Amino acid sequence: MDRIVECVPNFSEGRRVNVVDAIVGAMMLPGVKILDREMDADHNRSVITLAGEPAAIEQAAFRGIATAARLIDLDMHRGQHPRIGASDVVPFVPLRGVTMDDCVAMARRLGERVARELDIPVYLYERAATHPERRDLAHIRRGEYETLKQEIATNPDRAPDFGPRRVGKAGATVIGARPFLIAFNVNLATSELQIAKEIASVIREKGGGLESVKANGFWLREKNIAQVSMNLTDFTITGMLTAFNAVKAEADKRGVQVLESELIGLVPIEALTQVAAQALRLPGLSASQVVEMKIFGESVV
Amino acid sequence: MDRIVECVPNFSEGRRVNVVDAIVGAMMLPGVKILDREMDADHNRSVITLAGEPAAIEQAAFRGIATAARLIDLDMHRGQHPRIGASDVVPFVPLRGVTMDDCVAMARRLGERVARELDIPVYLYERAATHPERRDLAHIRRGEYETLKQEIATNPDRAPDFGPRRVGKAGATVIGARPFLIAFNVNLATSELQIAKEIASVIREKGGGLESVKANGFWLREKNIAQVSMNLTDFTITGMLTAFNAVKAEADKRGVQVLESELIGLVPIEALTQVAAQALRLPGLSASQVVEMKIFGESVV
Repeated sequence: MDRIVECVPNFSEGRRVNVVDAIVGAMMLPGVKILDREMDADHNRSVITLAGEPAAIEQAAFRGIATAARLIDLDMHRGQHPRIGASDVVPFVPLRGVTMDDCVAMARRLGERVARELDIPVYLYERAATHPERRDLAHIRRGEYETLKQEIATNPDRAPDFGPRRVGKAGATVIGARPFLIAFNVNLATSELQIAKEIASVIREKGGGLESVKANGFWLREKNIAQVSMNLTDFTITGMLTAFNAVKAEADKRGVQVLESELIGLVPIEALTQVAAQALRLPGLSASQVVEMKIFGESVV
Repeated sequence: MDRIVECVPNFSEGRRVNVVDAIVGAMMLPGVKILDREMDADHNRSVITLAGEPAAIEQAAFRGIATAARLIDLDMHRGQHPRIGASDVVPFVPLRGVTMDDCVAMARRLGERVARELDIPVYLYERAATHPERRDLAHIRRGEYETLKQEIATNPDRAPDFGPRRVGKAGATVIGARPFLIAFNVNLATSELQIAKEIASVIREKGGGLESVKANGFWLREKNIAQVSMNLTDFTITGMLTAFNAVKAEADKRGVQVLESELIGLVPIEALTQVAAQALRLPGLSASQVVEMKIFGESVV
């Protein structure tokens, strides 16, 4: 596989295993690997991670959306997590041999098809957004399904990018393209939540800190420690070691030690070669020097 | 491929491309990937890197040795690099789902077969050695082919592990098992060779420094800088970041800056996750969190 796209669809079903089984089953196609599957009953939501050849992934995403529309009724859905649709949000992520523009094109093509074949309103978001404010998922999802249902026909700001100005029981779907997101947390040797919150507010982009970093402070009850929790929304701009060092420097200023960090979910190999390149002053390091990548990639002969 | 062995046979031919083509061609079997191929005319030697399923790699190694024995005549061979055979040295390296003991067993089985079917004397080395002094390749290869030819019949220390006590035109072959070797150099912001030599002598295992590290100082003519050149013979004992930091600390003591480092050839992904785990204080990091490994590995569903 020389060209690989990741897709991380979020479905509004986190309780009925057979429904999630059916959705995942519909997405299992040749050329598609299911990398992860998470169900959350409180959120009543599931997050599936798939990767593979672009055309196969696009088709799998369509089949997942169609199956969710058939089996999930938003009028009956309750859960803590905000949502506007049975297939709530469907991002494409370029992984290998594929550009962001390719993923934007996939998002638009899929959006048009979902609207046409399934009669579902589609909003394009992040890099695929057609309006600046729609880059932000929270903006599109404001008021959730219940508000959208009332406003979609009359509020011009609610006009979908594709499909009807009315929602059925499957709600609406947000489709887009974005870089790989790394969820990376740093645990501090203090129980003071305030310190983690302060550090988060200084290092995040919104606070004038590191570009492409979202951050928040949390208190971990079981460990009784404070944590700086980060989303690195484009690690090619700010990577893990830069983010870690920034948290450490701010912790040092406050006389607090860093205990350890934790990675939630997966990282692309380039995010690791980037860390090693920085730590070892090894600017030429590339994923093609990793023996497993050579083995699983093509032969050099 | 759940079980992967690497093999890095060194052949005493670095000038005739068609001979190396024939050897590589003989090793191209289903289940075998040729990862790298290097020919050196001054050394008159080629180094082939292959990886794949253990049984296929063992068979490929045998076919490479048989082809080299047919096409290379040690009595005609001249080159800078020490050698005792057409197939000079053949190490097996465990990469995935395979133990060192598995590779030792492969080395012994291959050695016995090479002796029996090709009538070539075989010495076992490194982890496969049957005598402590034969762990050291240089010891086995002392005096090279020309000396071995005279001594093998009469000197008891020269008795091979398998095969006849005489050498034909294919010489003898050294077969064994060893951990993955990382060739890793650190360039210093000085032209003084002596500083690199001092640092190398302090950090290497022989000088009481870091376990499983071989090191030497070199002067790079073109860049006019000194370099500490290292072989990390078992990165699970001393990894790249530990080695880099040791060189940096010694350079600091001498008031010399580290310019950058360089990696020659390939590294296993575990060597990178090890660097990232240290640099990010992320002890739980594993190769299974790398998205490409998930994609190329098995599905979780």
